[in-house]
Formats: sequence, C-alpha cells, structure tokens
Amino acid sequence: MNPKNIKRILEEVKAGKLEVESALEQFKSLPYEDLGFAKVDLHRHLRQGFPEVIYCAGKTPEQVVKIMQSLSSGEHNILATRASQAVYEHVKLIFPEACYHEQARLIVIKKGEQKSIGCVLVISAGTSDLPVAEEAALTAEVMGNKVERLYDVGVAGIHRLLHNQQLLYAAKVIIVVAGMEGALASVVGGLVDKPVIAVPTSVGYGASFGGVAALLTMLNSCASGVSVVNIDNGFGAGYMASLINKIGEVD
Amino acid sequence: MNPKNIKRILEEVKAGKLEVESALEQFKSLPYEDLGFAKVDLHRHLRQGFPEVIYCAGKTPEQVVKIMQSLSSGEHNILATRASQAVYEHVKLIFPEACYHEQARLIVIKKGEQKSIGCVLVISAGTSDLPVAEEAALTAEVMGNKVERLYDVGVAGIHRLLHNQQLLYAAKVIIVVAGMEGALASVVGGLVDKPVIAVPTSVGYGASFGGVAALLTMLNSCASGVSVVNIDNGFGAGYMASLINKIGEVD
Amino acid sequence: MNPKNIKRILEEVKAGKLEVESALEQFKSLPYEDLGFAKVDLHRHLRQGFPEVIYCAGKTPEQVVKIMQSLSSGEHNILATRASQAVYEHVKLIFPEACYHEQARLIVIKKGEQKSIGCVLVISAGTSDLPVAEEAALTAEVMGNKVERLYDVGVAGIHRLLHNQQLLYAAKVIIVVAGMEGALASVVGGLVDKPVIAVPTSVGYGASFGGVAALLTMLNSCASGVSVVNIDNGFGAGYMASLINKIGEVD
Amino acid sequence: MNPKNIKRILEEVKAGKLEVESALEQFKSLPYEDLGFAKVDLHRHLRQGFPEVIYCAGKTPEQVVKIMQSLSSGEHNILATRASQAVYEHVKLIFPEACYHEQARLIVIKKGEQKSIGCVLVISAGTSDLPVAEEAALTAEVMGNKVERLYDVGVAGIHRLLHNQQLLYAAKVIIVVAGMEGALASVVGGLVDKPVIAVPTSVGYGASFGGVAALLTMLNSCASGVSVVNIDNGFGAGYMASLINKIGEVD
Amino acid sequence: MNPKNIKRILEEVKAGKLEVESALEQFKSLPYEDLGFAKVDLHRHLRQGFPEVIYCAGKTPEQVVKIMQSLSSGEHNILATRASQAVYEHVKLIFPEACYHEQARLIVIKKGEQKSIGCVLVISAGTSDLPVAEEAALTAEVMGNKVERLYDVGVAGIHRLLHNQQLLYAAKVIIVVAGMEGALASVVGGLVDKPVIAVPTSVGYGASFGGVAALLTMLNSCASGVSVVNIDNGFGAGYMASLINKIGEVD
Amino acid sequence: MNPKNIKRILEEVKAGKLEVESALEQFKSLPYEDLGFAKVDLHRHLRQGFPEVIYCAGKTPEQVVKIMQSLSSGEHNILATRASQAVYEHVKLIFPEACYHEQARLIVIKKGEQKSIGCVLVISAGTSDLPVAEEAALTAEVMGNKVERLYDVGVAGIHRLLHNQQLLYAAKVIIVVAGMEGALASVVGGLVDKPVIAVPTSVGYGASFGGVAALLTMLNSCASGVSVVNIDNGFGAGYMASLINKIGEVD
Amino acid sequence: MNPKNIKRILEEVKAGKLEVESALEQFKSLPYEDLGFAKVDLHRHLRQGFPEVIYCAGKTPEQVVKIMQSLSSGEHNILATRASQAVYEHVKLIFPEACYHEQARLIVIKKGEQKSIGCVLVISAGTSDLPVAEEAALTAEVMGNKVERLYDVGVAGIHRLLHNQQLLYAAKVIIVVAGMEGALASVVGGLVDKPVIAVPTSVGYGASFGGVAALLTMLNSCASGVSVVNIDNGFGAGYMASLINKIGEVD
Amino acid sequence: MNPKNIKRILEEVKAGKLEVESALEQFKSLPYEDLGFAKVDLHRHLRQGFPEVIYCAGKTPEQVVKIMQSLSSGEHNILATRASQAVYEHVKLIFPEACYHEQARLIVIKKGEQKSIGCVLVISAGTSDLPVAEEAALTAEVMGNKVERLYDVGVAGIHRLLHNQQLLYAAKVIIVVAGMEGALASVVGGLVDKPVIAVPTSVGYGASFGGVAALLTMLNSCASGVSVVNIDNGFGAGYMASLINKIGEVD
Repeated sequence: MNPKNIKRILEEVKAGKLEVESALEQFKSLPYEDLGFAKVDLHRHLRQGFPEVIYCAGKTPEQVVKIMQSLSSGEHNILATRASQAVYEHVKLIFPEACYHEQARLIVIKKGEQKSIGCVLVISAGTSDLPVAEEAALTAEVMGNKVERLYDVGVAGIHRLLHNQQLLYAAKVIIVVAGMEGALASVVGGLVDKPVIAVPTSVGYGASFGGVAALLTMLNSCASGVSVVNIDNGFGAGYMASLINKIGEVD
Repeated sequence: MNPKNIKRILEEVKAGKLEVESALEQFKSLPYEDLGFAKVDLHRHLRQGFPEVIYCAGKTPEQVVKIMQSLSSGEHNILATRASQAVYEHVKLIFPEACYHEQARLIVIKKGEQKSIGCVLVISAGTSDLPVAEEAALTAEVMGNKVERLYDVGVAGIHRLLHNQQLLYAAKVIIVVAGMEGALASVVGGLVDKPVIAVPTSVGYGASFGGVAALLTMLNSCASGVSVVNIDNGFGAGYMASLINKIGEVD
Repeated sequence: MNPKNIKRILEEVKAGKLEVESALEQFKSLPYEDLGFAKVDLHRHLRQGFPEVIYCAGKTPEQVVKIMQSLSSGEHNILATRASQAVYEHVKLIFPEACYHEQARLIVIKKGEQKSIGCVLVISAGTSDLPVAEEAALTAEVMGNKVERLYDVGVAGIHRLLHNQQLLYAAKVIIVVAGMEGALASVVGGLVDKPVIAVPTSVGYGASFGGVAALLTMLNSCASGVSVVNIDNGFGAGYMASLINKIGEVD
Repeated sequence: MNPKNIKRILEEVKAGKLEVESALEQFKSLPYEDLGFAKVDLHRHLRQGFPEVIYCAGKTPEQVVKIMQSLSSGEHNILATRASQAVYEHVKLIFPEACYHEQARLIVIKKGEQKSIGCVLVISAGTSDLPVAEEAALTAEVMGNKVERLYDVGVAGIHRLLHNQQLLYAAKVIIVVAGMEGALASVVGGLVDKPVIAVPTSVGYGASFGGVAALLTMLNSCASGVSVVNIDNGFGAGYMASLINKIGEVD
Repeated sequence: MNPKNIKRILEEVKAGKLEVESALEQFKSLPYEDLGFAKVDLHRHLRQGFPEVIYCAGKTPEQVVKIMQSLSSGEHNILATRASQAVYEHVKLIFPEACYHEQARLIVIKKGEQKSIGCVLVISAGTSDLPVAEEAALTAEVMGNKVERLYDVGVAGIHRLLHNQQLLYAAKVIIVVAGMEGALASVVGGLVDKPVIAVPTSVGYGASFGGVAALLTMLNSCASGVSVVNIDNGFGAGYMASLINKIGEVD
Repeated sequence: MNPKNIKRILEEVKAGKLEVESALEQFKSLPYEDLGFAKVDLHRHLRQGFPEVIYCAGKTPEQVVKIMQSLSSGEHNILATRASQAVYEHVKLIFPEACYHEQARLIVIKKGEQKSIGCVLVISAGTSDLPVAEEAALTAEVMGNKVERLYDVGVAGIHRLLHNQQLLYAAKVIIVVAGMEGALASVVGGLVDKPVIAVPTSVGYGASFGGVAALLTMLNSCASGVSVVNIDNGFGAGYMASLINKIGEVD
Repeated sequence: MNPKNIKRILEEVKAGKLEVESALEQFKSLPYEDLGFAKVDLHRHLRQGFPEVIYCAGKTPEQVVKIMQSLSSGEHNILATRASQAVYEHVKLIFPEACYHEQARLIVIKKGEQKSIGCVLVISAGTSDLPVAEEAALTAEVMGNKVERLYDVGVAGIHRLLHNQQLLYAAKVIIVVAGMEGALASVVGGLVDKPVIAVPTSVGYGASFGGVAALLTMLNSCASGVSVVNIDNGFGAGYMASLINKIGEVD
Repeated sequence: MNPKNIKRILEEVKAGKLEVESALEQFKSLPYEDLGFAKVDLHRHLRQGFPEVIYCAGKTPEQVVKIMQSLSSGEHNILATRASQAVYEHVKLIFPEACYHEQARLIVIKKGEQKSIGCVLVISAGTSDLPVAEEAALTAEVMGNKVERLYDVGVAGIHRLLHNQQLLYAAKVIIVVAGMEGALASVVGGLVDKPVIAVPTSVGYGASFGGVAALLTMLNSCASGVSVVNIDNGFGAGYMASLINKIGEVD
C-alpha cells in the first residue's frame, strides 16, 4: 500500500471509476491467504525477493502440504526447511516433482529453469558439519545462485585452506560453516575482502554447549567483515548470501 | 604469494634475471612492520580492501600513535575505534588533521577526496542507541559509502518506521541498531529484500544482560536475510555493510 | 474462612443453634482434603476465584483421578493441564464427560452452562506456537471468558497483524504467544492500550535456548503494558487474562 | 488510520470536499515530531492511553528537555524515568513545575487535577526494595490510580503479610516488589483472586545474580495469576497495573 | 591413624611386643578394599558415622553387587542410591533381603534392628516432588532417625502449611523439598528456630531450567537458618539431617 | 503470640482484670513495629531463637539506626551485617557501646554476658577468604557459640589441613569458607562425621565468575554431609551453625 | 614448505635439473587426500607427531572407513574416537585387525610393535569416570607411552590417594579424570611437581550441569601446574600427555 | 612422611636412639610456618619444584610482606602475582632488591644466578593481550626457563604467524595468549607437535563475556595437544610450561 497506489485509487474514486465501497475493499484486501492455523504470506516475494519459506519443525505434515498448496500458484521455487522424511512422504503424494535432500532436511519444488549468478562459496571446517553446509548451499542454489563447495578445511590443518585460496578469491560471498571452536570464520575473514557469513554448528561436545562456543567465537571475530547467523542455521546463511550476491546483479 | 607470482619469480630465476638469494628474499619478505609490541599488517588493504583498523581499547596512546605512523605511509584513510579523548589528545599532536567523533569514539584521518557509492541505511531503535549507530555510519562513510540515517523508530511506535519505508526500499544494505529487546531487526528484515546487518546494543537494564537479550533476538529472527555482529559493534556492521555495498559497484 | 462465615457461626452460637465445641471444630476444620500424597485445596475457589487446577506432569494417572474426585463435589469446572493421552484414558473411565484437548494437553470437566464475558484475544506468531496458544485460549474459555484467536501473524510479515487491528482494539486483554525471537509482543504492545500478557514458547533452535531468547525479548519490551509468564505457560497466561478480564465485570 | 477514517476521507474526496492532494497528505501526515535524534511519538496517548514516557538512561539532559518540550503541548502528565539529579537540574530550568522523586528517579510534570480510580496495592518484601516499589507506586499515581503501599512484609516474617490481608482483598490489582529469592510474589498470588504483577529487584548479592534469582522465582510461581516484568522495572509494573485497573472503570 | 594409635604402636615396638616389619605393615595397611574399578572405603563408617553409600548411576549392576559384597561384612545398613529396577534385579539374586524403594530409587539392606532418634521432618511443596522427598526421608530412616512427612503444602495454598505448624515445632531438623520457584524453604525458614535443609527439585518447565530456579531461590533465602544441597539430592539432605539430628543425641 | 500469653490474657479476662475489648485488642496487636519504611519483626526471637538481624545494604544509615532503636528494647545482642564504616559512624552516635568489625563488616551491640557453648570450627582455604570467614565466626560468637578458627589450609598444601585433624574431630559443626575452586569443602566433608556448612567466596578471577565456580563445587560435593549457603554469606553460615550447635545443648 | 626446501627447489631450477612447471607442481602439491566430504591430512604426522585422528561423531560408518583407508598407507597406528559399535562393525569388515575398546569408544589399528616410554599416570575420582579415564589411557598407549592407572581415589576418602603417593612421584605426567565437583585435580596438583592434565567429566546431576561444575573447579585450581581440556575429552588429555612425556625422550 | 622415613624412625626407636616422645614429635612436625592469617607452605618447593607463590589479590600489603619474610630464608626466587603498585611500595622497603613488572603485575626477588633451559615460546594474538603474555613469560623466566616472545600475530593476518614458523619449531613448549575469539590457539596447535598451553584473556567486549568466548574456543580446539588455563592466568601458563619444559632436562 504505497503512496502511488493510494493516489491512483483516490483518482479513480474522484473520477467516478471506482465506488467508495470497492476502494475500501482494495485498501482492505488481504495480501495473504488465511488457512486458519496459518496466514500464508503471498506477497513476501514482492517484499523480500523470494516466497515464504516453510519451517517444518512443529508443523504437522498436513499443515505443510496445505501451505505448499497455497504457495504453489506462484511461479517461484518452493522451499521447506527442517523437513523430516515423514513430512516428505506426505508432500510427494501431492507434489510428485518435490525433491528431498535428506542430509540437509530440505524439500524443494522447482518451477522451470532459472538462471543462476555467481558465485557463493560454502566452506566447512569438518565432515560432521556437512548437513548444515549443504542446507546453506542448496538454499543458495534454489534461490538462483551458483555455489562452490570447499569442505573439511578446518584450522587443525590450515594448509588445506591455504592451498585453496583461489576459490576464496573467486567468490563474491563466502559462507563458513564450523562447529567445535569455530575458528575457521576468523581465518577466512582475515584472508579476503568479501563478506563472510559465519554459521556456527552444534558439532562438538562438552563445553561446545550445543554450538554456543562456535557462536561466541564468530561473534568475537578479530577479523572484520564477518557476520553471524543462528546455530545450525544453514538456511539463513544461504538466504543472506543470496541477497548479497544479487546486489551485484542488479547494478 | 599466489601461483602467478611464484611462476614469475621462478621464470626470472631460470632466465638468470634474479639471483637465488634475491628470490629467496622475495619469498620471505615480510608484509608487515614489526614494532615489537605490534606487527602492523601493511598488506591488509590488498587482502581485505581496507587497511588495518586500530582497536584502541587496551593499547596505550603511544602504541596507537606508533601504529598510525606505520600505516600513514599508505594512501588510504586511517581509522581507529574505541578511542578515548585521551588517546585523541596524543594523536592530534602528531596528526593535526585527525578528526575525533566523540559520540562514536572514532578517530579518522582522511587522505584526500574519495568517491562514495550508495546507499547504506543505518536505522536505530532509540535515541540511546546513537553512539553505536554513529560508529556504524561513520565507519561506512570512511570506507567510501553514502550513508542515510533513520533514528528512533523502534517498535513501540511502529508507524514511525512504516512512514519511512521509502528509505528502506532505496538502500542497498541496511544496518539495524537496537538495544533492549532488539525486535526492530526482525521487523525491518520482514519488510525488505536487502541484506540486513543487525547490531545489538547494551542499552537496557536487568534482563537485557548487557545486550544479550537483543543479541539473542537478532540471532533468532523469524525474518530471513538478517545476520548479526557483536554487541555494540557498530564498526563491524559498518565494515560488513561496506563490503556488501561494494559488490554492486564491482560488477 | 471468610468474615461472612465467621459472623454466621458466631450468630448461630449466639442463637444457641450451635454448641461452642462444635463451633470451635468448624473454625479448626481443614479447608483442604488430605489424600496423603496431596492436600487438595478445596477453598481455593474462594480465595482465587477458580478451583485448584491439576498440574499433571510428575503425577501418576491414579493421583490425578483421586484429586479430581476430591474436587468434583464442587460446582465449578475442573481443569487439568499437561495431561498426556494416558492420563486422559484413566480419567474418562471415572469421568466419562471429561473432554480432552490433545494439542493443548488439557482435560476439562464442565459443570453445566456458564456465562462468558469478553473479550480475551489470543495472538500467535506462528503455526508452531499453536499448542501453547490453544492452552491459553481454552483455559480462558473454561474460566468463563469469550476468546478470539488471531494466529500466524508474526513480524516476518507484519501486514498480517496490521490488517487485523480491529481485533486488537476490540479486546479487553491480549495474550501474545511467540517463539524464536518473540518480537511480536513488543509490536502488539506498541499498538494498543490494553494489558498484554506475553508467553514465550520453546519454538526455535540453536540460540533460542528452549525459549530463553523469546523470554528475554518479552521481558525487555520497549513497549509498555507488557508482562510475561513462563516459557510455554499458556495456562498461566489464560488464567491471568481471566483475572484481568473479570475486573471489568465486577465493577 | 482505521477503516472509518479512510471511508470518511474517501467520501469527502468523492463529494469534492477534499482535494486528492490534501487527502494524500492526510494519509501521509506524520503522527510524530522529528527531532533528528528522536521521533517523539505524539499519538501514543491515542494508541496506548498515556503519552510517550521518556527513558532518560543514555540520553543527554538536552535531549530529555527537547523531548519534554515536544510532549508539553499535550494536556497529559509528563513522566520521565531513570532520571538522574543532573537531568532534573536541566529540566527544572525550563519546567519549574517539574517535580523530582529522587528515590524512584522519576521526574513528573503535572497538568491540572486528575481524578484517580482505585485501587492499586504496591507490596515490597524489604526496605531495600523501596526505590523500585516507589517507582511503581508513583507511576500508577501519575497515570490516575489510587495507590496503597504495604512495605517490608517479606516471607522471613510472614505474619506481617497475614496481618494485612484486608489490604490485599481491597485492591483491584497488586504489584509485588521483591529481591533476593522473591518468594513473596507466589505467597501473595496464592492468597488473592486479583492479578499480581511481580517485579524482581536486584537487591541481594552472590547467587542473586543481580535479580535473576528473583526473576526466575517469579516466572516459576506455583500460584496462578502472577505475571512478571523486567528486573527493577517498577515503571513497567505501575504502567501495567494502570492499564488493568482502568478496565474496571470503562465498563 | 591418629596420634594415639601411633603412640601405642611405638610403645609396643619399644617394648619389643611388635616387630618393626609388623609395625610398618600396620602403618601401611590399606583401609579400603581394592576391586580394581573401585576402592571400597571400608573405614568411612569410622570417619563419617555411616558406611560408604553406593551411587549407582554410571556403574554396571555387576559393579554395584561387588561393592555391596565388599561392604556386607560390616554390621551397618547398606544403602545404594539412584538404583534402577535393573540394578535391583541383580542385587536381589545375591542379597534376597534387599529392599527396593522404586519411587525413591533406593536399595536398602538392613542389618538387624536399630534404635531411631527423632525427629526429622520432611516437607514437600507438591505431589510431583515426592520421589526426592522420599529419597530424603528413607535415607534419614536408614541412618537411624525418626521421620515425619508433611507433603503438598506449597505456598500456592499456604494455609495448608500454617495448619500444620505443630509438626514444624516438634522437629529437630527440617528438610524442605520444592521445585518450580522453591519459595517454601524461605517461608518455613521464617517460622522456626531449627536448621532447615533445602532441596531444590527439577520439577517444573521452561524457566525452571531443570531446578536452577528453585536452587537460586533457596540460596538467596531471606530467612536465616537455611542451607542447600544439589538439585534432586534427596539423599544428601537426608544424610545431612541425620548428622545434625545426632548431635543432640551425643551430648 | 505463644500459648502462654494467650492463656495469661484469658485468665486476666476471667479474673475481670481485663475487658473483653482490650483483650481482643491484645490478640490483634501487631507483633512488629511499623516504621513505615520497615516493619521490625519483634517476635522473631521467639520464632527463630535470635532477634531480627539488620541487613544494611540498600538501607540508609538513618534507617539502620531506627531499626536498631526498635530492637534495642529487647534483651538480646543486636547484629547488623554488610555495614559500611559510614553506617557505623551514625550508629555509634546513638549506641556508643556498638562495636564495629571492619573486615567482617559487622556491627554488634552486646547486652550483658552470655554463656557460650561449643564448638563451631571455621576453616578458610586462603588468606583472601578471611572477611567472609570472620563474618561467619563473629556471627556464631554473637549468637552464643564458642568458635575455633583454622585459616589458610587450602588443598594446594593439604598437609596443613591433615596436621590439624584434631580440631576437626573436636568440633560439633564445621564451616568451610573457600573461593577459587572451593575444593576444601569436599575434602573436609570426607574426613569427619559432623555437619559441614560450605560457604563459597567470590575470591578469584576469570572463570571463578564471582564465586560461581566454588558454589558449584560445593553443591556437587562427592562427600556427604555438606550443605551450602550463598556466595560470601558468612553470616548465613554462622547462623546455621549456631542453630545446629544448639540442638546438642537442648537435649 | 620451509625455506630450505624452497632454496633447494630454486637451485635445482637454476641448475636446469628441474623444469619450471615441475617446480610449480611441487609448490602446489597437496599434502592431503581429497575425498570430497573430507580432506585427509596426510602430513599431520610430520607436523604433529601423530597421524590425523578420526572423530567419528557425526560421520557415517562409510565415511570413517574411507578416511581409514586413506590413512592406512602410512606406518603409524590408526586411532578413531567416539566410535559406536555400529561404526566398528563396518570397520572390521575392511580392517579385521582393528580392535574396539567399547567402554572408551575407541577403535585402534596397530601397525607392528612400538617401543613405549613412560610414565603417564591416569587417575580417576570415581568408578563412573572410567570410560573417560580409559579413553585417556588407551590414547596415550596407542601413541607410545607406558601408562599406569589409579582409579576411584576421589576426595570423599582422600586416604586412598595418599596411600598411593609413590605412583604420583613415579610418573612424568599425570592425568586426573573427575566429575561431580572435580576437586581431585587440585589436590593432586598440590602434591606433585609434574604437569597435571585435568579432565572434567559429565558424571553427576543437577548443578553439575553436564560437567560444567568440574570444569570450573579445574580452571580455578588453587594449585599451580594444572591445565584443563574439554569435558569428557579423555582423548585430548591422552594426546597432550603424550606430547609432554616425549619431551623427555628427545633430549 | 614416606615409608622409608617411618622405618628409619622406628628402627631408631627400637635401637633406643630415639625416645617415643621425640619420635612422636617428628611425626607431627609441621612443614609450614603459621602466621595466623596464613600458613606459609615451606616445603612446597620439595613437593612442587618451586616455592609457594604469593597471590596478592585480597591480601593487605602487610600480609604480603610477612609471607615474603617467611619465604625469604630459602634459596629460591620469590614470586608475587597480581601485585598492585601499592603492595610493591611496601615490599621494597623491606626487600630493596625486589623488582616490579608493572604491566604483568609481578614482584620478583631473585636469589643469585640461575641457569636457564629452553625454550618456552610465548605467543600473543594482539597488543592488548600483552599484560597477560608478559605475566606468563616472566613467570617462566623466574622459574629458570629461556623464553622467546612472538607478539601480535592473531589470525586476522595469519601470514604474520606463518612467517615465524621457525620460532614455533624451535620451542619445546608454547604458550598462546589470546582474547576476543581466541582462534590462535587452534591454529598454532595444528602447526606443531609440541604441547600448547592456551590462555584466554578478557580482551574484548560484548559477547566476549570477559574472556568466556576465548575460553570456550580454546577448550573446544579442533587441534589436539592444546590444554587451557583460567582467563587471564598468565602465571598459571608460565608455571605449567616450566614444569613441562623441565621434564626434558631431568631425563
């Protein structure tokens, strides 16, 4: 409901093209579909550049399917995160084209081909961080970005990272996924002039406190140009990287 | 020391243009100046797009001045953060052109004119968040970005934000600075398709725990496209925003 | 043992209808029933306006049934919270009229019709918050309040809330149920002049710390007129809202 | 900008009484005054029943005075919280009628006489809790409520509370202010059928963790009908109590 | 190995009654039995007034049985805490006289009759606290104390406690077991001149943080004469109460 | 209002010495003195065996003096804790006999001679723990207990403790005061069959977190017979030890 | 890639013995094997004195086997930690010589005989700490150290430790494994002049917070010469002890 | 009091060379000097290889001086940590040879020349970490170790560390001192086969939580061979490094 719209409606009213009641209806028209248990945000794509993404945790499979049906009239890819195998079983009955990425717990429904721009680099410290790294990488791909992966290059053997510096220089945005002490984000941040999105993971035990150690490490990075998302939030990092990557495209 | 350089040096050695000892020296040459108490990182500009920034907390005024002298041979702006009035008194004796931003605790030494690209929008929730917001805004300006400010638009009176939505749509990156419950970051994140850098501040009391409440709020944002820096880290947000903003420029 | 009762007993003594010893016994009679493992608080209705509510967690089904039997001589609705399906199976053998609300984990035994006053509005940020929101809404209904529901209007798409402001203005008390960052409570608090009861939920992951993030957000609300109950305590919010709503009735 | 207003404006436009440009202006008109460092929320009284309250912490005396000047055109009492003596010195130069409550750190500017309704009861556990208790009591009074005070009745000598039960029964809302272990809120909550607003204070040492112990106690109250505000937030409790108390008035 | 013993041995050596080698052996003799995985502390009864108690968590059933066999040569009751049903199944094969208290997770092997002194009073706030309360009560009984129980007298209905004040005055030591906000300990502490041992339990949810809320409440008790043991440590409270209760006996 | 008093009043009524209305007044008379800011608990001695103790933190010197005056009509020693030098200066103007223990921050006003029973042993781990240890020791002395002191016997040189085991065996109750890791409490608890009151202190730095490390150590003591009071709460430990020590006396 | 190597390569290039392209290859040659999901660090033995150790948590059995195959070309023992029975089942199909230590969750593949130097002493406080103690002991043994074990000598019966002081004096490095309050590390640290590696375990309940209590105890040790590894990190302690123990060997 | 000594004393008693009373005295003889407020541990040098070190925090200057006098009869260097300028002023009146290291807050009294063995390397991440790094370095020097320093080589410019790898290879033990995110410890740990002692510092702000972030990072190091001491505990790291370094010497 921006001023231009308001002005147009007002002028139509003044010109007698639009009845007061109809105009009122337009002001009131809901930009979401009300399913009772959910209000599907149908114009999120306009506001945010990508449709509402379905967070499956705490929702029944039936609720997920209904929200997908509400979203499916649009022309954009549909993405559901934290989806269990059980949710996917329900979804594929209705959307046989849905694809399930088990490790990353994502369901993706693709709508036609899409051009991709690049490049987002996803780096993981260890093999155990792969589920989160893949959630980030796949999210960025679904949102139309080319993605490179550089996995298992943690600081316990820093030469593995240093031997791949070309990948760092080639990327426009970098996602660093690391658990335990999460030191990789600072090291990468110190090597590049690109924005680094750091994702702490819950990999570790004892004083890792479910990812808190890595989270604090990343928030306190002595290297500049590092910002942080929630523990295990691969989706959020992929989304953020996509927004950043597309700034270059637009200009 | 990327492969291209190594190859060039090797070819000069083979061609007899470069002695082994000289080549060895080149491999070894230190890209920093060693002041004993500090190793000033002189090629950070090449790696990170901006020279080393001086974090003044815990350094003596003399140490700050010496690091500035080491950096001053370059052609880029010099930035010192968390600088007390006392530090500035020392600095201006040697660098009379140094400018002190008291509220933001920044010292800036400008080197000639610089073109700025835009636009970074800095939003604050309250008036008490201004020192951090200004640290972010000034950092982005020093690094060559146009900056807009939208202050005191917290969610207790959300119409103040909604009346300024045009500013949100015009920006390429948005920094949201908020203390207390820090809810503003999520609200802004839900309204735009731009990357949002959230900065929790230590404004508040009791269960704000020195900014932890706002930090957790921002890390758990239900809106996508929000990443977070350390509590009160206006500098880090400005730096990150600058890296993002310049992606558009390069392409 | 309210003053009216004391006066009545004294007058019966004076009138010779009641022996001194019998009167003394009445003064001493315990206002609870002692089941050994529990002392059922039979005059809580007099003190608090609603009978003792049974918290089922940590109690055996047999204990729950026995407490219900002790309470069932009264004329008020009986409410049991955090009741598992297994507890309900036991209860319905003795109380076939008992009704089980699975999502909200409540057992309700209604005693005749009851007039309801209104209106309590229950708002939830997301679909995953529904179990807690329903616990709040049903509690308020059982206690004699009219309840409106407005679900899935979180700040990631704040227009969903703004399009329903009439509901906010029509309510006398508002309950806001939100997990993740819990920002909705502040936004609602900033829009109305009604008391807002905020209920943080454990919906979320990572740095939501089982609801702590939302709890801190709500405690630090920059909007006034917001108070908070325990994480996932839908019952407590419904109870508090009922007490508030009835103030209007009494006067 | 509720539908009724929109409809009225639309009808005036249709009737030719209002030009399109003027109508547009009305839709856009800012309900706040922009001071640069602050956007004073001038229609908060309409939305929330009381004008914007000034939180002085982190604001300069000059900023506080300017915000007061912006608010002073209205007809309601002006309230500033967490005001130091130094702030008050500045304020009274411009507003000689301003009154300073040192213990409660409040500045009040009264506008004429005001009727008060009642009754809000403020209870404190100890003498050391008085600054917070007085902040609550004075806030409620400034907002037009009659206030009773019952101080130093903590559970270490519970007969002091039990001897004053009449005060509890006479109140419509009760505020309980307690530090250390904060047990008083549960005890009061168990005695009455009125809403209880619990305010933890930072009184204590060691494992009181600056009020966290009392905060957790109050959030976990085994008595129903208790909700909680931030540590030391006497203002918030007084505000909440006022909103609740006035529900009775309206009906 | 107290001085008296040393002196006696020395005198026997001097008198030629004891060989040097034998004396050396006595100095060296191990006051524990070494089972490899455990060193059973056989003279703990002498040092502490009760034999070593077996903490079963993290031990295999076989290990528990072997330690019991090592202890069984003594003449005192044997006590094993945190024992699962599975452990008990193993134990009763070897010790058919062993008795299992399922709710309290205790195994007791009694050795003949024992006189009991009194009186230890165990109070619980709610029915859900019974497992911990029973662990405390049974421990005290096994150690030779008379125990009274007063259950479900939490502060939500404080008259239930006040009606039983005679029990409080009759006890020599009082154990208060409470979860959620744990306020009962302070209230009891304020009513008596007896030492109160407070046991926080993990009963509760959300911000009870597994018993931390109750623990902090009890540590910050505004009533004097209250000390605290670990969360859910009914055994520790019973043990401590027994040591205290027996002081009276000895003198 | 103990039974003896009730009986006396009844007998005076029977004897015609006391009018019914006056008797009623006496039953109602408040067992505390209401100073407005404080309700001095004058019958705490009857309930708890020692008069109300004045916690000076957060009270003005004037308030402390007034409470002392209210208490001074009794015949028992008066004790004020956490008293600053400034408070003492006020007190001694009115009570020249008041004695100030600076290290322990206690003010004591003695009323005649008092017999002492023994023996409470106060052990400290280090020299830096002395202020808390002295607060405990002096409290116990003021309450009529003989006190032994054994200071600076921490586990870094455990032979210092082992060489003083006779003191441990001679005591009836033991207070262990320790900061840093607080291991001394467990070691002492393992050596004796007496109740041990453990007092964590805030001595230490870094991960001692103001005494939390020692507090947790003591709560998790693997030795039985140890209970814990708040960090730095020497007073509470001395009070608890006195209650325990006197159990022996009474019997 | 140390200077000596660079110089040698350069001289070979100058002498025409090495082509530029070959030299470039040598500079680039990757000292790890890239398995896609993992980059096996094949020269870690050269850098760190022991090959890469496989952390099995969060890895699939297939991934573990592939990394083992990559490492098996070397001549050193292979070690995998936190290995479940399921992982071992996979491993022994390919490596029948692999040995599984169930309690310690370690898989070891030995390559021929190996001389051991000594001595590392592993001490545990209780029987429940054995899994972690064994992980430490076995790790040290696999890395070529003689290991002594002294188990169940916690401070609740400190004579068990004191009777074994000879073992303490004979060791060159000591590992102390303790849960609950973890006091044993300080006591041992105070008895010896050897480095002590302290390992907190998650043994305990309630306020042990999964090992945090023991961790803090050990970090705050009042005895010098104690350093700490992560909770339950027996492997890390064994590894550290081995590095320390071998310093003596080299000289 | 090892068995050999006991045997010798016993044989002297048997042989009549030693009276029973004298022998008893020898068993009892105190290996510490009792100053009342302190028990100076005079045989700590025998047990731990270095005399008792004086922790000055919380001690009066007079107490520090008296402990020094008690220690000064020995032939070893005397070390006092956390010493303020004020303490030093007192000390130098009695010990004019005492040397004060202000940045490291150490007082050192040297006793003649001492041979040093090497080499301990102390690395700091930043200039602000120098006080702690110097405390570590000086402690190691006082205890007879050669020390190398490598300062300001944090991971924001990791080439500064990589250019100094020779120093890493030359050391026998390495101390890494780092604040903020503390990532340097893991990176160093991954480069060497020497034991690394990690010291987190309180350098940083916001979510560094006074050094907790660095502490957690170091405890969770993905590189093996890293153990950790308390926040800001440079002394402890230097002490530990000395114990380790001397293992090589002895063999």
